[in-house]
Amino acid sequence: MRQPTVHDVARLAGVSRQTVSNVVNSPDIVRADTRERVERAIRELGYSPSVAARRLRMRRSDTIGVHLDPYSGGISGVVLDRFVHALTDRATPRGLGILVYAAADAYEELVRLRALRERGEIDRVVLTGSVDGDPRVAWLREVGMPFVAFGRPWGAGAPDVADHAWVDVDGAAGTRAATRYARTSGPRVAFLGWPRGSGSGDDRERGWREEMGDGAPAALRLTSLDTVPSARGEVERLLQETTLDAIVCASDTLAVGAHLAVSHAGRTDVTVVGFDNTPVAAALGLSSVEQRPEQVAEAVLDLLVGGAPAGGRLIVPELVVRTGVRGDEVAPPSALSSRG
Amino acid sequence: MRQPTVHDVARLAGVSRQTVSNVVNSPDIVRADTRERVERAIRELGYSPSVAARRLRMRRSDTIGVHLDPYSGGISGVVLDRFVHALTDRATPRGLGILVYAAADAYEELVRLRALRERGEIDRVVLTGSVDGDPRVAWLREVGMPFVAFGRPWGAGAPDVADHAWVDVDGAAGTRAATRYARTSGPRVAFLGWPRGSGSGDDRERGWREEMGDGAPAALRLTSLDTVPSARGEVERLLQETTLDAIVCASDTLAVGAHLAVSHAGRTDVTVVGFDNTPVAAALGLSSVEQRPEQVAEAVLDLLVGGAPAGGRLIVPELVVRTGVRGDEVAPPSALSSRG
Repeated sequence: MRQPTVHDVARLAGVSRQTVSNVVNSPDIVRADTRERVERAIRELGYSPSVAARRLRMRRSDTIGVHLDPYSGGISGVVLDRFVHALTDRATPRGLGILVYAAADAYEELVRLRALRERGEIDRVVLTGSVDGDPRVAWLREVGMPFVAFGRPWGAGAPDVADHAWVDVDGAAGTRAATRYARTSGPRVAFLGWPRGSGSGDDRERGWREEMGDGAPAALRLTSLDTVPSARGEVERLLQETTLDAIVCASDTLAVGAHLAVSHAGRTDVTVVGFDNTPVAAALGLSSVEQRPEQVAEAVLDLLVGGAPAGGRLIVPELVVRTGVRGDEVAPPSALSSRG
Repeated sequence: MRQPTVHDVARLAGVSRQTVSNVVNSPDIVRADTRERVERAIRELGYSPSVAARRLRMRRSDTIGVHLDPYSGGISGVVLDRFVHALTDRATPRGLGILVYAAADAYEELVRLRALRERGEIDRVVLTGSVDGDPRVAWLREVGMPFVAFGRPWGAGAPDVADHAWVDVDGAAGTRAATRYARTSGPRVAFLGWPRGSGSGDDRERGWREEMGDGAPAALRLTSLDTVPSARGEVERLLQETTLDAIVCASDTLAVGAHLAVSHAGRTDVTVVGFDNTPVAAALGLSSVEQRPEQVAEAVLDLLVGGAPAGGRLIVPELVVRTGVRGDEVAPPSALSSRG
């Protein structure tokens, strides 16, 4: 005889399959009279939830694999963490799980992805830090596992065209907004960025250049490693060499260095704008470009649920303006610190 | 006839079961001659890796469920993120997976845990933010799922005794070390903490009190909300009222407020020590107590692998001393910012 299914129980009890599932998995959330009706149907039909559970275990996992980098200690690392938080927040109500895994490099990640797929633990992937000719992309395509990349595939070809699904932040739009705001302090707006050649760094510089038009001389383009002392040194040098109204930075780390340089020189008239809107920027009262990782997560999930069709989505970031330390933006203590 | 197992293949090929698994899952990492020998044994015995894969899917999941809080935007939130990073880094080589999930409150978390268990997606749990009489603890015990709490069960009973497994940071030891260091600036060392009644906050205050002995008058005990402006206001008031050599703070958020107050008052002779060793403290060159979340993660995994016997482990934190802004401690840009 055919085993009764959740469908049979639902029909007999006159409820949805979701309600039957709730009675089995989370009876507390079901109204007492509904629960009793479902439980009666379960008994009448001899339905066994454990059979259902076995079936559930055999079906596709509905779980997204996400690589979690080692903690970097950097100021901007929080952006990627916010993305993972947002992904988790939004995946749960959609019935999707998030499995995080570690890997030292792309090769180790490939080994790990293979094992996770083989054991049926994941059936979708969010890629971070993808590069041109990424071996993970080739493998995912080969095995037909849906994936979405957070980040554009920079390199050969147009930067906003790709043969896979991706979501990225429009860095140039962010620095355009930052530069537009900075110009209200005066015409001499410098850009403090990283050495050329990084896709996102060049993109952020482009926004400054576009907004400045003819007013972007090479003398106002500074290059620094992404460290506080390096940025500070560059800005101290610039302050001695030329007149300056504002500095737009490619990261909050660079902005902290710039902020220390202008504070130390007593040049609080020079506006500093950062990028990433980290807690450091909030604590120091610095304006900064907010990448909106929550929007990125939403778009990534939309694409994954929709089968991850090729093509990209750009999220427009938002300038958060702060005028010196007030600190109202600082949120309550984390769960850890405030643990009761 | 009995299906051949991975054990049979390993014996015939004269290799370990791990090597057979590698040939099936990640052939690239196996030496060519070994791979050929294993593949020959697989063909001879008619071993079907897909049967093995099915078996793998049916066995216990070896996956740890971890609740991920929504992003708080706070300065200290990074500590919990570091813990999740460290857990992931260390679980992967032990063959354990990490599944993160969201929940708005303890009740929703319970519903979520039930569903994850029912679907066989997790078989162990790391609890964060556990409280006295926690409903999650009662349920986990009822269903017999091994779990370890990050954080002591404060409340009734001795704070370091519990009938379940936990790992926590010895906050009092951290503020003792911070106070010992602060006293090298002079005898008047204040403590800036939260309103009484939070377990971890009271614990951190205790360390200051113990180290100060008789030199801890009520006038040097400040209370503030965990926000920069509130902390700044409290310290500005104290600087006007009394002589002061140093301030030990219960969090880096409080320390940023204290730092701004002493800088603004031109009192850079007053030493400020924070707690959590966040990127903000590093950027401002503030000394801070490092909670060592990597050690916490290691201890949590040890307990989970060992069956999670009742009892606690305290991790001793470490004071990181910085003398003003140098910024050498700031790490390279995050994967997101430096994305090539």
